[in-house]
Amino acid sequence: MTEGVPCSPLLTDYYQLTMMEAYLRHDMTQTAVFEFFVRKLPDQRRFLMAAGLEQVLEFLEQLRFSSETLDWLERHGHASRTLIDYLAGLRFTGDVDAMAEGTVFFADEPVLRITAPLPVAQLVESRVMNLLHFQCMIASKAARMVLAAPGKRLVDFGLRRAHGAEAGLLAARAAYVAGFDGTATVLAGQAFGIPLYGTMAHSFILAHGDELAAFEDFVRIHPDNTILLIDTYDTRRGAQRVVELAERLRGTDIRIRGVRIDSGDLDTASREVRAILDAAGLHEVTIFASGNLDESRLARLQRDGAPIDGFGVGTRMDVSDDAPYLECAYKLQEYAGQPRRKRSEGKATWPGSKQVYRRHDEHGQLRGDLIALASERAEGEPLLQPVMRGGQRVAPAPGLAAARAHGERQLAGLPAMLRDLAPGPADGPAVSDALRALARQLDATG
Amino acid sequence: MTEGVPCSPLLTDYYQLTMMEAYLRHDMTQTAVFEFFVRKLPDQRRFLMAAGLEQVLEFLEQLRFSSETLDWLERHGHASRTLIDYLAGLRFTGDVDAMAEGTVFFADEPVLRITAPLPVAQLVESRVMNLLHFQCMIASKAARMVLAAPGKRLVDFGLRRAHGAEAGLLAARAAYVAGFDGTATVLAGQAFGIPLYGTMAHSFILAHGDELAAFEDFVRIHPDNTILLIDTYDTRRGAQRVVELAERLRGTDIRIRGVRIDSGDLDTASREVRAILDAAGLHEVTIFASGNLDESRLARLQRDGAPIDGFGVGTRMDVSDDAPYLECAYKLQEYAGQPRRKRSEGKATWPGSKQVYRRHDEHGQLRGDLIALASERAEGEPLLQPVMRGGQRVAPAPGLAAARAHGERQLAGLPAMLRDLAPGPADGPAVSDALRALARQLDATG
Repeated sequence: MTEGVPCSPLLTDYYQLTMMEAYLRHDMTQTAVFEFFVRKLPDQRRFLMAAGLEQVLEFLEQLRFSSETLDWLERHGHASRTLIDYLAGLRFTGDVDAMAEGTVFFADEPVLRITAPLPVAQLVESRVMNLLHFQCMIASKAARMVLAAPGKRLVDFGLRRAHGAEAGLLAARAAYVAGFDGTATVLAGQAFGIPLYGTMAHSFILAHGDELAAFEDFVRIHPDNTILLIDTYDTRRGAQRVVELAERLRGTDIRIRGVRIDSGDLDTASREVRAILDAAGLHEVTIFASGNLDESRLARLQRDGAPIDGFGVGTRMDVSDDAPYLECAYKLQEYAGQPRRKRSEGKATWPGSKQVYRRHDEHGQLRGDLIALASERAEGEPLLQPVMRGGQRVAPAPGLAAARAHGERQLAGLPAMLRDLAPGPADGPAVSDALRALARQLDATG
Repeated sequence: MTEGVPCSPLLTDYYQLTMMEAYLRHDMTQTAVFEFFVRKLPDQRRFLMAAGLEQVLEFLEQLRFSSETLDWLERHGHASRTLIDYLAGLRFTGDVDAMAEGTVFFADEPVLRITAPLPVAQLVESRVMNLLHFQCMIASKAARMVLAAPGKRLVDFGLRRAHGAEAGLLAARAAYVAGFDGTATVLAGQAFGIPLYGTMAHSFILAHGDELAAFEDFVRIHPDNTILLIDTYDTRRGAQRVVELAERLRGTDIRIRGVRIDSGDLDTASREVRAILDAAGLHEVTIFASGNLDESRLARLQRDGAPIDGFGVGTRMDVSDDAPYLECAYKLQEYAGQPRRKRSEGKATWPGSKQVYRRHDEHGQLRGDLIALASERAEGEPLLQPVMRGGQRVAPAPGLAAARAHGERQLAGLPAMLRDLAPGPADGPAVSDALRALARQLDATG
């Protein structure tokens, strides 16, 4: 179990238990196919990026009810003896097909398919959605920041305002998949091996009272990790103190690596600070900026040529502030070999077990996707691949570095229209004729 | 440890460790005072509600570094021998003063104060903020829903799109503090004793294929928990099938308690369904609605008199969609007996250890707050109360029911201007003369 990522089977909605009860009593335990997809992209997104598969697989591998959990369910009248007996032996023995982490995807495309006995596929719905939704949302937001600030160092600073511990941890992970360089969250470093960044907060300066003394104390303790926060009182004076300190340190092995600005107008401040540093010959001291950043601010600073070498991005990425949820769903597409279709007003789904075929142009740029039945063959690369069969992984986990490299290639293959950060036309993928025919047929026989 | 609420001391930002290193080597281990507050209310909030204190206290009580954690830090070069030795013996032995959970609060008011040796008070910043920020945000959102739908049953349905497991769990808790009746999240029932609700999903109907058969299967298994989801294919036909089923069940002990509508225009649909049910004499069958609800939709349905008895609220509450973060901060206010003030552009703070005094009118309605120095005495009720001294709780945890009752009284005491759901004037609380004088004095001597 990854620390900070709980695996209790009770991370589920109560109705999963009441439905399981009914399924068991009526012998409805045949194979069901559920797919996870996003109905509609937020206006502010032209594409989404898949992430979180690894946590879903770990959850499924670890799925079991301890005797304490079963006791609790029974004692509180939440499960009959029949259900308790079933849960006691329950393991995930189904199949999973999914897009690799880092894959770009669009509305209505299945990102993950679970094929398992109906009660089991039903039980895991809540947590599978909870895990996939969040990381897909964050990777999609982070990818926009990566596109907005090419070549700049990007570090996740968002733990404090992420929605709880797991959100902080998994936001660090999803951002890394999307191309971030690291995180400030120490547990994410331990749990996932993500590079850690961080030096000092304003409280460090305030506790010293004297800014220059604070700087000097810090660099003598951390001669290799010296990014000095210069905006506690006045950013220009902070920069001048860095110059003063550099003079004091002349002849020592200590090198000031950079400064950080966390408030005010970052464009103006970074130019002033750059000028002060350059005038003192401190050309190699980098400027790192943070404070309320999102992709549009990054893009503006980039466009205007602000002399900033890296960014700490916190809240707005870790909560995906402009789109803090995705219209995702996990829907029954097939039961006992029969395709199913929900037709609720505004929430109708494409029925049956599906595949997504992606076509590229001769330069490797994404040209378009086709959603088809899994049983069809179509031109292009099939994006859903088998990852679990009979509850066993078909291959070892590819690892976070592989997911990040895949994400990088995916972003590189985006055409200009999709790289644009502005809200834009949201043409959905194409849908195969066979799939349309199946939907019509189910509507007619409903 | 509450399941799903991890307590690793590495739930912190990397800079806390680098700063601790410097504090220790320069003997800066004297007492620091940090306060948690919200700088500015979101435009869509006229008040906020405190929640999450209990999780903060549990985190502080459990704070310790295991030998595995220390090994990891040392092996990866994240801590010197000096810091490792300090961390090995580290326990939270400080003081905590805080507003009770359920208390309404405003911009700039300290909600929680930690008084502890500087390195310890610094280390806990990230997780204390992470816990308090999230629950305050959710309780504040949920309170608006409670105000929008007085007397209606409100149930949290948000786990699947909450930002991770902990967010789902703690959202259920914070909403309950604010006055919700229960949650669908089973683990929140186990962890916090929150009442559980839930019956069936669309997949249950889809798996059966035949809607009426699905209804009948369900009610025979759950004769006391029979809320039937009627919108999978067509809401009016679903309601007619409920009538049909009720006729079949005549003479049995089985009673259909309610129906749920999860899509379409809930106002129109609920009136149509009510008419169908009433025409069949099923006056006691209640209508429960869900699907994309927030406080403005609740208020509109309430105003228009839609015949809905209860609401399931999911995503928009669990992510606080219109304000998915609060501009909160945890700032050093005093070190070694000396008040401190951050003056960064746009982020200046009120210095020193503070108290909030609340005045009420003769009907118990909230009249206004005064932020003063903790050393001052002022008219009104002091909202920050001692909850921990020397690392020990001053009283047993008041419990969730007490927090919920306190929240209810707080909402009852809100004047009409603050109950209004529309964005409104955000007059901050008053600030005492002594506090203003101290801020001026610190600015002059900076």
